[in-house]
Amino acid sequence: MNIIVQKYGGSSLSTPDKFLALAREIAKRSERDDRLVLVVSAMGDTTNNLVALVRELSSNPPAREMDMLLASGEQVSIALMAIALHKCGIDAISFTGSQVGIKTSPAHTRARVTGVDTSKVGAELDKGRVVIVAGFQGVTESNDVTTLGRGGSDISAVALAVALGAQRLEKFTDRDGVFTADPRIHPGAHRVPHLSYEEMLEMSHSGAKILHPRSVFFAMKYGLPILVRKSLGHGAGTLIDKGERRMEEPLLSGVTHDASVAKVSVYKVPDKPGMAYKILKVLTDQEIPVDMIVQSTTESAVNDISFTISKSDLNRAVELLQAASGDVEGIEVRASPNVALVSLVGLGIRTNAGIITRMFQALSEKQINIQMIATTDVRISCIIDEASVEEAVRTIAQTFDL
Amino acid sequence: MNIIVQKYGGSSLSTPDKFLALAREIAKRSERDDRLVLVVSAMGDTTNNLVALVRELSSNPPAREMDMLLASGEQVSIALMAIALHKCGIDAISFTGSQVGIKTSPAHTRARVTGVDTSKVGAELDKGRVVIVAGFQGVTESNDVTTLGRGGSDISAVALAVALGAQRLEKFTDRDGVFTADPRIHPGAHRVPHLSYEEMLEMSHSGAKILHPRSVFFAMKYGLPILVRKSLGHGAGTLIDKGERRMEEPLLSGVTHDASVAKVSVYKVPDKPGMAYKILKVLTDQEIPVDMIVQSTTESAVNDISFTISKSDLNRAVELLQAASGDVEGIEVRASPNVALVSLVGLGIRTNAGIITRMFQALSEKQINIQMIATTDVRISCIIDEASVEEAVRTIAQTFDL
Repeated sequence: MNIIVQKYGGSSLSTPDKFLALAREIAKRSERDDRLVLVVSAMGDTTNNLVALVRELSSNPPAREMDMLLASGEQVSIALMAIALHKCGIDAISFTGSQVGIKTSPAHTRARVTGVDTSKVGAELDKGRVVIVAGFQGVTESNDVTTLGRGGSDISAVALAVALGAQRLEKFTDRDGVFTADPRIHPGAHRVPHLSYEEMLEMSHSGAKILHPRSVFFAMKYGLPILVRKSLGHGAGTLIDKGERRMEEPLLSGVTHDASVAKVSVYKVPDKPGMAYKILKVLTDQEIPVDMIVQSTTESAVNDISFTISKSDLNRAVELLQAASGDVEGIEVRASPNVALVSLVGLGIRTNAGIITRMFQALSEKQINIQMIATTDVRISCIIDEASVEEAVRTIAQTFDL
Repeated sequence: MNIIVQKYGGSSLSTPDKFLALAREIAKRSERDDRLVLVVSAMGDTTNNLVALVRELSSNPPAREMDMLLASGEQVSIALMAIALHKCGIDAISFTGSQVGIKTSPAHTRARVTGVDTSKVGAELDKGRVVIVAGFQGVTESNDVTTLGRGGSDISAVALAVALGAQRLEKFTDRDGVFTADPRIHPGAHRVPHLSYEEMLEMSHSGAKILHPRSVFFAMKYGLPILVRKSLGHGAGTLIDKGERRMEEPLLSGVTHDASVAKVSVYKVPDKPGMAYKILKVLTDQEIPVDMIVQSTTESAVNDISFTISKSDLNRAVELLQAASGDVEGIEVRASPNVALVSLVGLGIRTNAGIITRMFQALSEKQINIQMIATTDVRISCIIDEASVEEAVRTIAQTFDL
């Protein structure tokens, strides 16, 4: 029998009613032949509420204890899901990450999965049970509880699916798959039936919040197909896999946007080897991820470096950069919080020069100024003014009929 | 160095502020020489809130999943306590019941402790850390999470203290020890400095909610002294131990009351061997605990049996008894919800006939009717009308100068 791993996020699990509705759907399905493993996140706002409690205690809590605290959230969800399934007549059993053998590195709050012991899940599936596993959490060799950081529940689901040799991972969300653009901004957006891992990676990186890039990369590494579907829906969703079958499908996958980015520019950086590295190291040492990086090379002895980071990291990043650059003469750090990222994603974009030209032309006709540009094999990304982001998405979607 | 185990209940842990206040107290103390192990309950109403979520899902949830759910509550508390202690400069580490090796029977929701592996706690104490352990929970041989039922966190604390060879258990509560009567009812009540295990057992059984009888019995079995103290207070509390030193102290320990009991009477039970057993078995088979039992033996061929149970079990008990007695001619089941238990507790009560006489006389002078009587070596208990309970407590306390 096929094993299917299903992943349900916190917004699908915000009230007891939602647990029951999902359980009824799953009960219908488990009458069929698949063997089901469910990976669930913490209920709705649980994690935020726990973090708020901590803020009243300490601004610098020990990472090990944060993991102990946050892991309780998924423990509530798995138990409630098991109770809801029993109510619907399904024999189900729940396991924490620790119990089920999701082994991780000891890096608390951002642990990496090092292995999965499938014996317990396998034994329960063999008994005909639906197995429910707490996402986002694992356990170290010394039996300490860990959490996997951003996108952690997706990572748990991919790791379990790979280790179990599952036929696929089904990721449930609030839309029936991946769309060519955000339908709230561009009502003409349509579902993409099929994406390659590379395209999905680019869409994730550029703001489509459906799957964290880390889990797409993990699935790609092991060739695990992911089906993105709507919770309690019956649509076909979006299948993400190696993508060989896409040859006759359209080139462009969609337009994404991300208003959570900010831009930082460092002006008058001395043109010496390693200067860019030193600047970025100040941030990465403090676990502040840096995304797009653009360095203007001029004829003079100084360069300008711009990059994007998360808006939530902006104040800290600027402080760190100012402190670090205090002894370099003339250097200047400037923050631009009011920007957004807009990206066009599709296979072979770079090899088709006409696409980038049409995109820039369309934006310029709408008077939308492009502050930074970055391209990969399958993506063109622009940093623009945040106020223009919806118009930019609509413009690009209309230009390329997405 | 001495090991001290401290137990903090949910009402001491209802807000982040309370965690910080306790942490500050503990920080002062841990500057001294004791090695501290803290056993904590779930925050305030957490357990009730989780149970309320389940009620929206199912009236008959699987016991294993209830344990998985409820155990999350203490996991939150231990992490917050560790974070609060770190904030106060104390190196502390938290463990779930499972991690710390509190082994139990597989009887979910009412597991019994079968052993405690002290190696982990010992190793952390040796590093100079305060160790925080989740109360109320343990783990079976097959690594399933269990909970210990009523009074479970006290049981965890006693089990750990015994296994670690702790000098004593300090149980923190909202009053400075055990009082001769409830000070809210009898303002003249005073703290009892010292009680024997037997007296504390009787006081617990008869309504003093300070320690569950199960944990008093457990401590008695291993000779573990328990000091009942007020959270954030500096009083001397009540020491509970073997009680040899009590020889010159007063005979009577106090008057307790319990309004959570109900009375059930079964009339016209055929006077055949085993009938009382059969009636009670109907209840105990359904895990409904029965307390005082009185059987009136008459000359006729039928008997009347009365007993007390928890008010919350009353409706179910009556249904069960009526269903079970349907085929016995003439038998009749009657429920009395509006009763309460009042008890006088003290060493050697039964050997001093004058005490029981004075107690009954005092109650009768106040027109308080006694519906049932039970005595042990150290307790006289009466079932009276619930409306008279406060007057009865005051009357007994004044009569015996408690």
